[in-house]
Amino acid sequence: MNKIEVCLSPALIDLYSLKGKIVVIVDILRATSSMVTGFAHSVEKIIPVTAVDKCLQLKAEGCIAAGERNGQIVEGMDMGNSPFSYMAETLKGKTVAMTTTNGTLAIEKAREATQILIGAFLNIQHLADHLKQSKQDILIFCAGWKGRVNMEDSLFAGNLIQLLTATHSIEDDSAHLALSMYQQAQGDIATYLAPCAHAQRLAKMNIQKDIDFCFQKDKYQVIPHFKEGKLVNL
Amino acid sequence: MNKIEVCLSPALIDLYSLKGKIVVIVDILRATSSMVTGFAHSVEKIIPVTAVDKCLQLKAEGCIAAGERNGQIVEGMDMGNSPFSYMAETLKGKTVAMTTTNGTLAIEKAREATQILIGAFLNIQHLADHLKQSKQDILIFCAGWKGRVNMEDSLFAGNLIQLLTATHSIEDDSAHLALSMYQQAQGDIATYLAPCAHAQRLAKMNIQKDIDFCFQKDKYQVIPHFKEGKLVNL
Repeated sequence: MNKIEVCLSPALIDLYSLKGKIVVIVDILRATSSMVTGFAHSVEKIIPVTAVDKCLQLKAEGCIAAGERNGQIVEGMDMGNSPFSYMAETLKGKTVAMTTTNGTLAIEKAREATQILIGAFLNIQHLADHLKQSKQDILIFCAGWKGRVNMEDSLFAGNLIQLLTATHSIEDDSAHLALSMYQQAQGDIATYLAPCAHAQRLAKMNIQKDIDFCFQKDKYQVIPHFKEGKLVNL
Repeated sequence: MNKIEVCLSPALIDLYSLKGKIVVIVDILRATSSMVTGFAHSVEKIIPVTAVDKCLQLKAEGCIAAGERNGQIVEGMDMGNSPFSYMAETLKGKTVAMTTTNGTLAIEKAREATQILIGAFLNIQHLADHLKQSKQDILIFCAGWKGRVNMEDSLFAGNLIQLLTATHSIEDDSAHLALSMYQQAQGDIATYLAPCAHAQRLAKMNIQKDIDFCFQKDKYQVIPHFKEGKLVNL
């Protein structure tokens, strides 16, 4: 049996060995959900960046620039961070430069891994099917919120672990914790997550529609994959 | 209402503000359980230290030296880390120099707090009663295992939060996560914790008796308290 571990925050990643592992990056609200949505709607590449400047520079080089700050599209950008923006016909075959702080940090820190994949509830079963066949050890890497552990990413980790029980054995306590949390929440994820700090933060920004969308399972059969500085469809 | 937060690992502590808060340090297997047991059996002071050398130096100055490495009492020390060692008649009124890596690190990092208290299942209700009356914000600080999140400390955090729901509101996702885990485990904590990595590690060292003891609730009515480099009974 292969092994599965969970890193609950980028601040903890140095405690994990990444070599020889598949790393699954998760940032449910909203970076990885939007990435998955984009590839499901025929976006060709996504370049995740932290800085707004870098994103605008990529726009000057021909990319579509996507970014929000405090719920508003950043001046000069073409679109915001909502997964609904990533469904646009105009993105087909295009490269999107996406600003995301937590998600980009996680991808940067995972570079030593054998393979870096993007996970969300939207593609969880398809991702699990791929991972089952991979016969490799897995680290689920939660992007968290400004370094802190968050509930929605941990819950995704628990869900993915449950889908992989036949092929992967739990290797650390964080994975046990995530699975336990998911088992308690699975009957009603939305109610379970209502008190979660980040969902509350986003709800205040009037993006409840985005949140509901990001918690939908198995909507898409794509797996974004990090390769040479860019995300492409696997 | 006052606030309650949980820091799941010393590697995350820099993300939390400690000023004006009571910090509860927890390292269930076995440092904080042994500390509580010691004060319940009339130990006068405990000096937590990381290095064996420092512990032996304190022995030379008149302390009782306690420390284990890989399940064996360290050469030159008077006793090991088991809570049962802390029940000895010979410790009454004495100062114990205790080597503990995870626990000491957590105490070092918590120095900015208004008050540093020691928690374990053994004193959890007594501690909760004190905290209810304190009318201050609380950070439960899990010592973890070599920087990683562990299950037994997180579970204690969830238990303590549940005991404080009437006076303290949950402030971060880690606290929600810990409470959720505890709610699932509370019917049968021992079974729930059986797969936990650290318990398995310790079980291999033939200290199942210690583990069973550390998961007992409300055995003692003491609260160790950090003051001027030493732990004393509150």
